[in-house]
Amino acid sequence: MASTVRTKARPTINEFDLIRDLQRRHGRHAPSVIQGIGDDAAVITSRAGEWAVLTTDLLTEGVHFDLGTATMADIGFRAATANLSDVAAMGGTPQYLLVALAIPRTGTNRHVHQLYRGMMAACRPHRVQLIGGDTSASDGGWFLSVTLIGMVPPRKALFRHGARTGDFLYVTGTLGDSLAGLKLLNEPPGRTKHDPWAATFSPRHRKFLIERHLRPIARIAEGRWLSAHHFATSAIDISDGLSGDLRHICEESHVGAEIDLSALPLSPACRAYAASRKRDPLNLALTGGEDYELLFTVAPRQRPRLERMALEQEFSLTCIGNIHPHRFGMQALSPHGQRHRLINTSYEHFT
Amino acid sequence: MASTVRTKARPTINEFDLIRDLQRRHGRHAPSVIQGIGDDAAVITSRAGEWAVLTTDLLTEGVHFDLGTATMADIGFRAATANLSDVAAMGGTPQYLLVALAIPRTGTNRHVHQLYRGMMAACRPHRVQLIGGDTSASDGGWFLSVTLIGMVPPRKALFRHGARTGDFLYVTGTLGDSLAGLKLLNEPPGRTKHDPWAATFSPRHRKFLIERHLRPIARIAEGRWLSAHHFATSAIDISDGLSGDLRHICEESHVGAEIDLSALPLSPACRAYAASRKRDPLNLALTGGEDYELLFTVAPRQRPRLERMALEQEFSLTCIGNIHPHRFGMQALSPHGQRHRLINTSYEHFT
Repeated sequence: MASTVRTKARPTINEFDLIRDLQRRHGRHAPSVIQGIGDDAAVITSRAGEWAVLTTDLLTEGVHFDLGTATMADIGFRAATANLSDVAAMGGTPQYLLVALAIPRTGTNRHVHQLYRGMMAACRPHRVQLIGGDTSASDGGWFLSVTLIGMVPPRKALFRHGARTGDFLYVTGTLGDSLAGLKLLNEPPGRTKHDPWAATFSPRHRKFLIERHLRPIARIAEGRWLSAHHFATSAIDISDGLSGDLRHICEESHVGAEIDLSALPLSPACRAYAASRKRDPLNLALTGGEDYELLFTVAPRQRPRLERMALEQEFSLTCIGNIHPHRFGMQALSPHGQRHRLINTSYEHFT
Repeated sequence: MASTVRTKARPTINEFDLIRDLQRRHGRHAPSVIQGIGDDAAVITSRAGEWAVLTTDLLTEGVHFDLGTATMADIGFRAATANLSDVAAMGGTPQYLLVALAIPRTGTNRHVHQLYRGMMAACRPHRVQLIGGDTSASDGGWFLSVTLIGMVPPRKALFRHGARTGDFLYVTGTLGDSLAGLKLLNEPPGRTKHDPWAATFSPRHRKFLIERHLRPIARIAEGRWLSAHHFATSAIDISDGLSGDLRHICEESHVGAEIDLSALPLSPACRAYAASRKRDPLNLALTGGEDYELLFTVAPRQRPRLERMALEQEFSLTCIGNIHPHRFGMQALSPHGQRHRLINTSYEHFT
């Protein structure tokens, strides 16, 4: 449920402290609450013993999106994916959507319909249904709050807690693509024309990275599969950046972790982009949020079966490190074999 | 789920048309959706046959509230009540809360905690638990979206549709108090000092009306009782104003209605306020939104049992009119015995 992007300075409020504080003040729960504040989604159980997953994400203009580089349909798509991805990280199946929308003075019916079209385009492959919402005028910009409800089989939800020393650390797909796409969108328009790297960084790469930023795909099938086979001891989606999201797993599971940077999965497009802009692609992979890939831990004895079945399912999974005792902290093994303390380089929302 | 207050002009967007349009475009539903877009809350059924009620309400600064006349705790309380009341109107029991909050530059931790304290104060009597949410920075003002999840026994939910010709029209509590309270808050500060009506309009009246505006109570017990005994053929909560909300029942039930204005329940405080300001209290009762009372219809044969049991339960119910065939339209019988066409005087959100 953590939101996703770089936020303007708010010196007095730190989002993670705020969440912890709210949890402490209002987080006393009846037994029907399996998981309250503090994971990707909440999990509740009904009288009949069914488990539901609930998550809400907020996108605000000027903070989470910029209408100069994204269409209303893109914004709707990304808002839906942010929520779908939270449900994926719990191993759940998304089902229903509620949308709260504040519309600025400049907003038109056309804008609103484009936004909904984008949201429903992200939802349609998962048969998620729009069941309600609320609209209002806004004295500022656009505000979009999406709530998603899903189901997960009883006792099969994946949490941030549960990782154990010795577990392997895995990630789906490739990392850093979304941040590269965002950087491409923010480049001055003349940039590509005189691009000396045009030969290696092709228009196809550009299109791929921008698509990864504007139309990210939630890993619903992978999350359900991890949950169904009890493969994952813990899981989270990468919305704040690998290092920040790994920190959540470490804190909630009370463990440490080591990432092997040379193992981080990078797309050819991301590599080509990084080479053309003289950037370190590993830095994009470590800090880039909004990839909406899943980060999860796997017990050693499960590893062979996981790898074999992932091949059969054609899921792209990469082992990127190990879980260590808590005192180990978070470390990164560089491609040159050096160990570094992994500092939290994710974007916090109020710092 | 309709939001609640007077909105600045948005010439191109009409909220009710927008909802109808969204329903048409995205409202095709699987059988698990008992009620989608277009009622106070959505109703879904799970595989085990349990029914859940879901609603979301949006409050934006400068549109739904003004920090000059309400504290952050008041705003939180009202936001929670708006949602609790939607669940009450479905006959449901509220259970879980998710909160999305965008915080402006001027927002502090103290503001945020006051807001949550107000929300939880409204929720505590109903044992509703905060299970999640999202926070973000806002480039504009405060933006608060609350999602509430509740349960209702299978086949016992109350809807806007279901009213039949011959049914009696009832309302809980008293009407117009909230609007009177809002008007009091917006009066220039010197107003009361030189108030020639100070003798009849007492500080106690003033306090009552302002409390009804800032701390409205959702009629959860009444809604559950109406549902449990199958008393109501249709129901809605009064958030947009009696005439506007009655229109929703008439449209969804495809019926007409007559209101007997002399029967409208008015509090002594509202009467005293109206007398002191030379206003018609009936107009406050007809147009004032945010009373969060329940408006519902009752079959003639149920009426004696309803009235008897309401007395036992100490519920305040008033019969204010009748349901007629659709061609009758919506009419009001004035205290002088004249019939008027009831025009829609509720505040629409984008007109």
